Amino acid sequence: MKVEEWPQVIIVGAGFGGLEAARKLACERVRLTVVDRTNYHLFQPLLYQVATAALSPADIAAPTRAVLHECRNVEILLAEVQSVDVANRTLKAGDLELKYDYLILATGARHSYFGHPEWERLAPGLKSLEDAIEIRRRILLAFEYAEKVSDPAERAAAMTFVIVGGGPTGVEMAGAIAEIARYTLARDFRHIDPSSARIILIEGEPMVLAAFPEDLRRSATRQLEALGVEIRTGVHASDLTEEGLKVGEEFIPCRVKIWAAGNHASYLGKSLGVPLDRAGRVIVNDDLTIPGQPEIQVIGDLANFKDERTGKPLPGVSPVAMQQGRHAAENILLMMQGQKPQRFWYFDKGSMATIGRNKAVADLHAVHLSGLPAWLVWAFVHIMFLVNFRSRLLVFLQWAWAYFSFNKGARLITRSFQSEARPPP
Amino acid sequence: MKVEEWPQVIIVGAGFGGLEAARKLACERVRLTVVDRTNYHLFQPLLYQVATAALSPADIAAPTRAVLHECRNVEILLAEVQSVDVANRTLKAGDLELKYDYLILATGARHSYFGHPEWERLAPGLKSLEDAIEIRRRILLAFEYAEKVSDPAERAAAMTFVIVGGGPTGVEMAGAIAEIARYTLARDFRHIDPSSARIILIEGEPMVLAAFPEDLRRSATRQLEALGVEIRTGVHASDLTEEGLKVGEEFIPCRVKIWAAGNHASYLGKSLGVPLDRAGRVIVNDDLTIPGQPEIQVIGDLANFKDERTGKPLPGVSPVAMQQGRHAAENILLMMQGQKPQRFWYFDKGSMATIGRNKAVADLHAVHLSGLPAWLVWAFVHIMFLVNFRSRLLVFLQWAWAYFSFNKGARLITRSFQSEARPPP
Repeated sequence: MKVEEWPQVIIVGAGFGGLEAARKLACERVRLTVVDRTNYHLFQPLLYQVATAALSPADIAAPTRAVLHECRNVEILLAEVQSVDVANRTLKAGDLELKYDYLILATGARHSYFGHPEWERLAPGLKSLEDAIEIRRRILLAFEYAEKVSDPAERAAAMTFVIVGGGPTGVEMAGAIAEIARYTLARDFRHIDPSSARIILIEGEPMVLAAFPEDLRRSATRQLEALGVEIRTGVHASDLTEEGLKVGEEFIPCRVKIWAAGNHASYLGKSLGVPLDRAGRVIVNDDLTIPGQPEIQVIGDLANFKDERTGKPLPGVSPVAMQQGRHAAENILLMMQGQKPQRFWYFDKGSMATIGRNKAVADLHAVHLSGLPAWLVWAFVHIMFLVNFRSRLLVFLQWAWAYFSFNKGARLITRSFQSEARPPP
Repeated sequence: MKVEEWPQVIIVGAGFGGLEAARKLACERVRLTVVDRTNYHLFQPLLYQVATAALSPADIAAPTRAVLHECRNVEILLAEVQSVDVANRTLKAGDLELKYDYLILATGARHSYFGHPEWERLAPGLKSLEDAIEIRRRILLAFEYAEKVSDPAERAAAMTFVIVGGGPTGVEMAGAIAEIARYTLARDFRHIDPSSARIILIEGEPMVLAAFPEDLRRSATRQLEALGVEIRTGVHASDLTEEGLKVGEEFIPCRVKIWAAGNHASYLGKSLGVPLDRAGRVIVNDDLTIPGQPEIQVIGDLANFKDERTGKPLPGVSPVAMQQGRHAAENILLMMQGQKPQRFWYFDKGSMATIGRNKAVADLHAVHLSGLPAWLVWAFVHIMFLVNFRSRLLVFLQWAWAYFSFNKGARLITRSFQSEARPPP
């Protein structure tokens, strides 16, 4: 068979799921196109460290082209796919029309504001590098503002940080901001005491880390409280303004609000014309294909895959996406040989959440870890899973540096491109 | 004398000049306020490496607060100064009014477009981190666009990079873009050959690096040509459009244009009410004070200091700014004791420009170096002058990595903060 006759596979999205699928199909007898709207694969589990000034964007993002450049059958396209034309097996991406024989959709999710899209501007979520840089800017600017302002109420509001959502991202952000305030910035200001900053974590469930076993949830609560984080559980944010946030009947004045409360799947699911769940996820068959279209597979955060053992959809975490990515690629290789796609089983190795220096929880099923041992496992696993050796080295060194110096290196307030700087009028 | 009676010194600008002055005055018997509109000290000589994806912003920027946090008499203020009220010894910065007894102005320069401010959008210059991130974005997007587009003329224009101005910055940018195209991206594309990119360097003088001795200018020309850079000397950019740039009678179609051709000093000089030169620089006395106001000193790129030995103003380079910063601080300590400010003498250790891997020129007066020896001196000096150990280590490691792998690690296309990503309409 000539190269031109090889089947055309398109993978949309170069996150954990898409990249794993691409690696599996690279150098196989397919023409493979990976379409993504950014030019890098982002290691999202460490994104909160960019948002809290511990790492630089480039430390956790690797150019997709460089990751996949070995095999000549792989083509990368920087483009945003608008829709899938299932009947004609075509994708629309701007002016481009892309034909596929097999399609893997892995475009993930964004945060969702439960019917309040206007809250996004007030309380950014943490999904992209741009989000992380914006959150970093807001956190650092809040301290700068507090140092300048003389009104005590304004100062207090500037030094109050509210994180909505007590899942792993919310817990990580709360812990990291507490550490910045208590250690990193401790000696840097003259008119404020950064360690007096209030960090408030809001969670609708009775305890943080709803997906973890109870002993670890309790331990996470204790570890957060040891860092001075105030935890409010069983309450929801009912209103957000520039000035603060309403929780139940209480109004908390605060400048910086961070959203870690909910996700909504990428818009691309809609154009498939198959059932979606309430979070916009595509309800997939047990082999990851969609009803009626075995040439289309949906994976990762965009997919609702019901785990028969628990009766619940698999969680939106990277191990699920990676295993589904590999499985979807294998399914394509099977289908190319005229065989049927295979059923997907998730192998759950456990889950972890980090809270700060020497503070974490890890649920490895056989054993539950807390504190230093959990933190060491967490650090080791995250370094090992970084996509290339350069990132591993840079992240490791910066962590080692931060560990011993209590310093964070990437404390930059940057804006978008500005032309000629002028004095304000 | 009580602390409240110590004289109030204000330094505006935390670049090379301002930071050196601040370090000299830290822990002296003054109340010192450093005002800057960014929260970091930027190591500008390596800014072109951020623009060409070799380093991350945080590698060459250190938080000013952290650099100066040792001495309790030093206060940092994130603010933009609009004007100086010389008669009342007051600065205006937004809502704030700041009183000073002694003032050091070190707000530097921006690039200038010789009466064509509308060109800035088309051809950004390289002074700030925001500039560097924008230029990096444009360079990387040009290759992505070339890979997608099918029209040969459009593709050629996307792969043509024009740098206007053949001083050190222009030479560094031209060399670095040539290296990216020829080495870093070599294997990453399928429809274009990145090494066929054209890099054109435009210089109005008969040879690049006008400030260097003739043998080194000749050597720099040869080294640039070895990397494939096309050099056009004795010509000026006469028109710029989205589609390209006019040089003399020739129109060069190109998407990416970079401006490295001229500077104009910060607007702050104007409010002093003393003579400025054509580039907006304050013409200072031979002790760095301004006419009639010994309590105000102007240093670095904002100052026009006539060097008696050459009859010309000192160049806008970091050693001048740093030596002037130290001198201005010493002058203040003298004036506090009732003595007169001293005359400033510049000690010129030489100058360097780098072109690429193993390629540079160095004019150390006693000896002129080219190629590998010049490059090693350049690399050593730049690592040593980085402001803190963390930066030194990170830059050194990334250079070592890039040297052996020919790879650049920070190849990210990032935009400004965007809310909910939607498909284009």
